[in-house]
Amino acid sequence: MSVPSSAVGTAQIGVTGLAVMGRNLARNFARHGFTVAVHNRTFARTQSLVADHASDGTFVPSESMADFVASLERPRKVVVMVQAGAPTDAVIDELVPLLEPGDIVVDAGNAHFPDTVRREAALREKGLHFVGTGVSGGEEGALNGPSIMPGGTKESYESLGPILEAISAKVDGVPCCTHVGPDGAGHFVKMVHNGIEYADMQLIAEAYDLLRSGLGASAPEIGEVFAAWNTGDLESFLIEVTAEVLAHTDAATGRPFVDVVADAAEQKGTGRWTVQNALDLGVPITGIAEATFARALSGSAPQRAAARGVLPADTLEWNVPDPGAFIEDVRLALYASKVVAYSQGFDQIAAASAQFGWDIDRGAMARIWRGGCIIRAKFLDRITQAYERDANLPLLLADPYFTAAVANGVAAWRRVVSAAAAHGVPTPAFSSSLAYYDGVRAERLPANLIQAQRDFFGAHTYRRTDREGTFHTDWSGDRSEQTW
Amino acid sequence: MSVPSSAVGTAQIGVTGLAVMGRNLARNFARHGFTVAVHNRTFARTQSLVADHASDGTFVPSESMADFVASLERPRKVVVMVQAGAPTDAVIDELVPLLEPGDIVVDAGNAHFPDTVRREAALREKGLHFVGTGVSGGEEGALNGPSIMPGGTKESYESLGPILEAISAKVDGVPCCTHVGPDGAGHFVKMVHNGIEYADMQLIAEAYDLLRSGLGASAPEIGEVFAAWNTGDLESFLIEVTAEVLAHTDAATGRPFVDVVADAAEQKGTGRWTVQNALDLGVPITGIAEATFARALSGSAPQRAAARGVLPADTLEWNVPDPGAFIEDVRLALYASKVVAYSQGFDQIAAASAQFGWDIDRGAMARIWRGGCIIRAKFLDRITQAYERDANLPLLLADPYFTAAVANGVAAWRRVVSAAAAHGVPTPAFSSSLAYYDGVRAERLPANLIQAQRDFFGAHTYRRTDREGTFHTDWSGDRSEQTW
Repeated sequence: MSVPSSAVGTAQIGVTGLAVMGRNLARNFARHGFTVAVHNRTFARTQSLVADHASDGTFVPSESMADFVASLERPRKVVVMVQAGAPTDAVIDELVPLLEPGDIVVDAGNAHFPDTVRREAALREKGLHFVGTGVSGGEEGALNGPSIMPGGTKESYESLGPILEAISAKVDGVPCCTHVGPDGAGHFVKMVHNGIEYADMQLIAEAYDLLRSGLGASAPEIGEVFAAWNTGDLESFLIEVTAEVLAHTDAATGRPFVDVVADAAEQKGTGRWTVQNALDLGVPITGIAEATFARALSGSAPQRAAARGVLPADTLEWNVPDPGAFIEDVRLALYASKVVAYSQGFDQIAAASAQFGWDIDRGAMARIWRGGCIIRAKFLDRITQAYERDANLPLLLADPYFTAAVANGVAAWRRVVSAAAAHGVPTPAFSSSLAYYDGVRAERLPANLIQAQRDFFGAHTYRRTDREGTFHTDWSGDRSEQTW
Repeated sequence: MSVPSSAVGTAQIGVTGLAVMGRNLARNFARHGFTVAVHNRTFARTQSLVADHASDGTFVPSESMADFVASLERPRKVVVMVQAGAPTDAVIDELVPLLEPGDIVVDAGNAHFPDTVRREAALREKGLHFVGTGVSGGEEGALNGPSIMPGGTKESYESLGPILEAISAKVDGVPCCTHVGPDGAGHFVKMVHNGIEYADMQLIAEAYDLLRSGLGASAPEIGEVFAAWNTGDLESFLIEVTAEVLAHTDAATGRPFVDVVADAAEQKGTGRWTVQNALDLGVPITGIAEATFARALSGSAPQRAAARGVLPADTLEWNVPDPGAFIEDVRLALYASKVVAYSQGFDQIAAASAQFGWDIDRGAMARIWRGGCIIRAKFLDRITQAYERDANLPLLLADPYFTAAVANGVAAWRRVVSAAAAHGVPTPAFSSSLAYYDGVRAERLPANLIQAQRDFFGAHTYRRTDREGTFHTDWSGDRSEQTW
């Protein structure tokens, strides 16, 4: 089947790759009045989309890639929604010879941003625009309004942007989509979004573990606590999801659902990429790192089997005279730790933006994360406002709103981290976030000792607090100081 | 100048690249009775080595690479001691056409192990052996006996090994050198060694910070504590160095030396590589990660400037009625945290060994680290013994000796981490190590909640505790459970 001549050049946007994410994006475009060219490697899937969802709007199905491209109006806008890696390259290689200068290829998959940088450069040489775009919100978001983070040229955004904004989530009427920055900026920001999501989920899990351990509370009881928290500062999709899953009962056993779920968390790689990149940039994102490693530890079956029942606990007995006060302490610790995780993630965005020349508007990133995506939260408005007050804010934690918000909970945070250590509840992300807080605010860190050691054994030199220059002490000789 | 015909084929080993590390290695070879061919890009340096250190033994200097190669007996053994990266590749490219099948090229620089894997494969195709080897101990070690970690083929070790063992450090008469494993195994193990070194130094710095903060002790007073610790379980080069630098007085100001050293620690990249690799392998090495990020944080000047005096401390006042007991608590916490850092590092070695087919003997690694290198310590004997008891030990912490050693300090460790949180002393590595300990021994981690959340928003599925299989709950539908 080829495209009827009447359909040639009529579609405003095309989607190739019609697995669930691609199908839902195509339907979302159609529902917003766009004529959508659709294509899939196996044509049956294209046909079933058109057959099942004709009521969504106008689809132009094509069996061949050539017909698919022919059905698009110029400049052509093709959304590629296939697996990251080699499958994405294969589809791009098939598409490129069919396109003309000025056409736009959109990779809406989960590419690693260096791949996006490479592809953008390759297509730019051919006069094509390549837009690597983060899309968050899963299947549900793709259909009903995701958060969209497109990179690529500003020029491409002029024609592509309005279409993406139309299908994105809206909060207070504002689309959760904006031009992030050149080449890989979109996929980079999506990666950090996912890293923050790891930290957020780990912090929630630690709060749950503390309530379970400290109060001996059941899953549904803890679910009620989260439901209550969802009416305050912590209001967010993840807190809502937590309340839902904690309240759910397993039909097979009649037990709380979470109690029958295996305690081994999996991961798909974006947390890892985020931490690896932060190490390259030299940005301490300890909350995300601990969250990523906590998932790895949960899946370390041989190590856990070797340790279980063998390593002594030697903990204090819990004695929580006022459960309400304890719950409030955990809530405040969760909020403060969450602010640290976001502060670290936005630091990473700033560092990458400077390194790669992306000029990313951090306030705008918080704005487009308010809806559609997994970390959507009321809280993000406060981040946008912080960057509106100071676009070059060096540390989100030091914005007056967040300083005040955290100040309110610092004592509670300290009590919770102390209690977790005393009672043997593993809270790597809570503890690490507090250590970061105390580290970044420290008048003097013990890094002076580390520099001194490095000079002693490796002649790595040091700087002094009282004058400029680089110095070395002749440790194996007369211990005089030399200027290097 | 070319090599006199009487010198052709006489040198048992050659060194090219005569900066301080190469010069000291060459002298070390000569002192052990080997005839050493020496070469450097600028000949003057070669000449000065021979002129200044003739008393060390027999050097055969060459101005050209061709003469240098000609002066070696077969199979030729050439140690390349130049900067990692492109300079190493350039020297290899110059050497290779001059060599013959069976010759051995040794890269003793700080290469990243994937580069070593690549180079080994390339040289193997030409019938050459390529041995990437870790050398630890700095300038001093290179001259007087380093810890040496050679990779490459077993065959290459037959002729090269005895020479390297001869110049290595010895502990109880045993050389600190052994064949680590194929291709990149040697540089990999050296990388993890450096990662552990980062953790060890950060833990020492945190102990120092706690004593400074908790007791208001001066640097020389804390130096005395470390000197005392160096007579017990913690006996090690790094503790000794710590005592030395803390005791040192700055001549210019008369103040304790460390008090005039700037508190920004630098790094050269191996800590970062170690953590990045652990993320790829899925091995939680949280102590090394926190140490690496702590250095990054110490150098994050704009963030620290924004936070200093702005973020509220809200800490408890220190009240240490029994300084001796507090010092002993910190010592026990340091020891326990150190065991965790090593346990994590050896886990990483096991995972890489399995992934790359290296078959690394972990007990032997601890043995060759007992002398020569930066992390040399009495303690390493205990690690060797643990792997002698069980070569496949899944978790070093679970070896009976270490379980007992840590058991003795768990309560103290909990008190110290609790106190640090309450009093605002940043102890990311202490806290993270305790969180790991409590995580790995946990009967049940809160990762069940994370898997449940992932299933809710991303249909990522979960496993159950009560039966095999992969499951998904239809969260947006009737919430029935489906088998996937």
